[in-house]
Amino acid sequence: MPDFAKLTAIKKPLPEELLQALQNLLEDRCSIALALREQHGSDESSYAPMLPDAVVFAQSTEEVATIVKLCHYYDVPVIPYGAGSSLEGHILALRGGISIDLSQMNKMVAVHNEDLTATVQAGVTRKQLNLEIKDTGLFFPIDPGADASIGGMAATRASGTNAVRYGTMRENVLALTVVTADGSIIKTGTRAKKSSAGYDLTRVFVGSEGTLGVITEITVKLYPLPEAISAAVCSFPTAFDAVNSVIQTIQMGVPVARVEFLDENGVRAINAYDKLSLPEKPLLLFEFHGSEHGVKEQAELVQEIAAANGAGNFEWATRPEDRSRLWTARHNAYFALLQLRPGARSISTDCCVPISRLAECIQETQLDCERHQILYSIIGHVGDGNFHVLMLIDPHDPAEVEKAEGVNSRMVTRAIAMDGTCTGEHGVGMHKMDFLIQEHGSGAIKMMRALKHAFDPTNIMNPGKIIDWEPPKE
Amino acid sequence: MPDFAKLTAIKKPLPEELLQALQNLLEDRCSIALALREQHGSDESSYAPMLPDAVVFAQSTEEVATIVKLCHYYDVPVIPYGAGSSLEGHILALRGGISIDLSQMNKMVAVHNEDLTATVQAGVTRKQLNLEIKDTGLFFPIDPGADASIGGMAATRASGTNAVRYGTMRENVLALTVVTADGSIIKTGTRAKKSSAGYDLTRVFVGSEGTLGVITEITVKLYPLPEAISAAVCSFPTAFDAVNSVIQTIQMGVPVARVEFLDENGVRAINAYDKLSLPEKPLLLFEFHGSEHGVKEQAELVQEIAAANGAGNFEWATRPEDRSRLWTARHNAYFALLQLRPGARSISTDCCVPISRLAECIQETQLDCERHQILYSIIGHVGDGNFHVLMLIDPHDPAEVEKAEGVNSRMVTRAIAMDGTCTGEHGVGMHKMDFLIQEHGSGAIKMMRALKHAFDPTNIMNPGKIIDWEPPKE
Repeated sequence: MPDFAKLTAIKKPLPEELLQALQNLLEDRCSIALALREQHGSDESSYAPMLPDAVVFAQSTEEVATIVKLCHYYDVPVIPYGAGSSLEGHILALRGGISIDLSQMNKMVAVHNEDLTATVQAGVTRKQLNLEIKDTGLFFPIDPGADASIGGMAATRASGTNAVRYGTMRENVLALTVVTADGSIIKTGTRAKKSSAGYDLTRVFVGSEGTLGVITEITVKLYPLPEAISAAVCSFPTAFDAVNSVIQTIQMGVPVARVEFLDENGVRAINAYDKLSLPEKPLLLFEFHGSEHGVKEQAELVQEIAAANGAGNFEWATRPEDRSRLWTARHNAYFALLQLRPGARSISTDCCVPISRLAECIQETQLDCERHQILYSIIGHVGDGNFHVLMLIDPHDPAEVEKAEGVNSRMVTRAIAMDGTCTGEHGVGMHKMDFLIQEHGSGAIKMMRALKHAFDPTNIMNPGKIIDWEPPKE
Repeated sequence: MPDFAKLTAIKKPLPEELLQALQNLLEDRCSIALALREQHGSDESSYAPMLPDAVVFAQSTEEVATIVKLCHYYDVPVIPYGAGSSLEGHILALRGGISIDLSQMNKMVAVHNEDLTATVQAGVTRKQLNLEIKDTGLFFPIDPGADASIGGMAATRASGTNAVRYGTMRENVLALTVVTADGSIIKTGTRAKKSSAGYDLTRVFVGSEGTLGVITEITVKLYPLPEAISAAVCSFPTAFDAVNSVIQTIQMGVPVARVEFLDENGVRAINAYDKLSLPEKPLLLFEFHGSEHGVKEQAELVQEIAAANGAGNFEWATRPEDRSRLWTARHNAYFALLQLRPGARSISTDCCVPISRLAECIQETQLDCERHQILYSIIGHVGDGNFHVLMLIDPHDPAEVEKAEGVNSRMVTRAIAMDGTCTGEHGVGMHKMDFLIQEHGSGAIKMMRALKHAFDPTNIMNPGKIIDWEPPKE
């Protein structure tokens, strides 16, 4: 855990001149109202809010540039804010400063059907993007569950259910417009599908969590809607059997579009929340994309694999509305699970391991939860080796928090020991800074710090996230 | 073009102490023999050689680290050398220094069939890698034509024929071991398929052309060998028709594994060189990967599209030996073309545009070549919007060189104006430094320079490539 006392100790009061300048520029789109600051000082993590000094609503890249220039001049922190759906404390203003809300930057900049690309402002959400392009026969596949903003998804290197087939934001962002720490505007790439033109600035900013600059526009890849889609659920005697089916599916190269795991508690929760009647056993939720025949072929192969692992029957959802119902239920799992223990908050975890180690990693993590008598559920994008443990705890009971953090810490250590990563898709934020060091080692962290120093020499960009700031050596 | 006079002017003599230290460390694996220095001071570009002061053959990451530490101490340039197949002057020692030949680092570090990953030393070539894993049922798809080293391919962000289906080195490298400019050893990632753990150091080094550090080990993704493969060639009345077929194929989302374009001259050259009898018209060379039925489906769709664009019949190569013969011919195109004009060298170009602009970009480039009476051929990985013009010129005739550079310059400018890139896969080297600025603009170049300064503060890593060094501002 970062040393919050140390970090918040260097918080300075907001210069009155800066506030005045921002109010002159943005009028009622600059606010110091407490409710707004509270909203912008908290995310979906279990952290207590840490408020920015002011919230500004930007409407263009140029406005963001002016705001950052001002903050740079007055040495005041800048925290980019998308939809507020981050999970590791990314947007908490632990040194105060200005929260730049990008939700009003919600315009489509350009859709190039003929090139399978779209350029959007950072505040466009993934659902909005798919709605805007629904008549083109194309879609944007990255789906982290929440209706996150595309800017936030880029900043977090998000992924989710479709990543097993379509990749993550790492693979699907072609170019970015970024406001750098001194308020300059840069473009990091073009709409060419591939390029060897110099350092990969796009990938430098994707996953940088607002600590290197503010992403204001994003060019993403789109994909033709598949000719056929089918989805199915299938129950297994144990989690181990379910996960082993997934491992074999991936090893055989079956191009599943999604394969999601829910444990018994997960199924029980969504049954209650979404009025479903799925068998309350470990479950896989599959989706297949392709030609009519291709989808059939994939489904047959996967059914064979599942049967060999003791699966029950596949229940098919071929009608769009049935599929949508299933996926809505999956996406609601987080909120559904919270209902299992009223008043509880969920500490959600995230790790990703090489696929062959997934069953073992999940099994050991389950045992750990049970040993510590935690009410938990494991759900995961298992086709990528990525899973989450949601632990329902009373946030006001330090003993419970400590138990849950212990499970999280051991899970991450286990994943790293298996040559996996401390976060598959949620990012580092404030919560995983120590794990980042554990995963990468001091040499790589030194290079990350060199990058941070080079791109944000005065540490105004979302300070206190990803890596501890240490002043550059002279 | 970079100002070579300025760059070579700051070349310093090799410190005798450094040479002694390297000889003590490496014995006969450190050489100052002229022939060896000449070999290591030239690549496949049309540049005259620029010799390093010494060539060393490293056998381990630790040795590379020691060599770089010594060079760092004595402020001497370090140029990593893989297979010497680069095309834009990447490995030329324009300030002298030490060429680190990595070809003896040709060991497989680990193959994890069960996770579809392999870790190799930098000197392993792509053909060697595929040979080493041939009994696993897996393959490594990235195929730039030359039997390049995996380290060099990572450093150049290479791609080639299979990229349309499997991506480039950008998408297929999971992790690197890198020796940084001060001789430290870092690991940039894990074997997890996805990660949101901090800055994407892997992608920072992929495509950095040895200017940020020496890549010594690479973990790459592998893919299950497809159940069925088929290949076909098909001729078209004009290049425009051929390229339009490709555009429509990509827009429909047909998952072709490869689709290569050769113009008349290209076909004529490979017919002569490889004793084939292909119709001497613009040609597409397709390969389909998938299930038996899937391959058939893809092929049918593509045949329909091609027919609508005036194509002749598809000639199928279903036997592995026939396919291999076709692809060998495609890979030999560069050498085959050189035979069209004995004594000539080829100036090869590289650009990549959004797919919808490809036909137009190729057509205008053809007209330009014809207007300037250049013997040329256009070949390309057209499924990605990527193509090359090979111009056969007398390298000793400045007027011819100038004409060819003019075509190249206008082609790149055209590609950039179409929101494309100055290089799809060959990299920047010394040849595209001005185009890089044209493509990215001064703001992005400033960030690239900040990155270079941060990672290589004394400019010893392959100096004079990608961006002009300017001393960091104090």
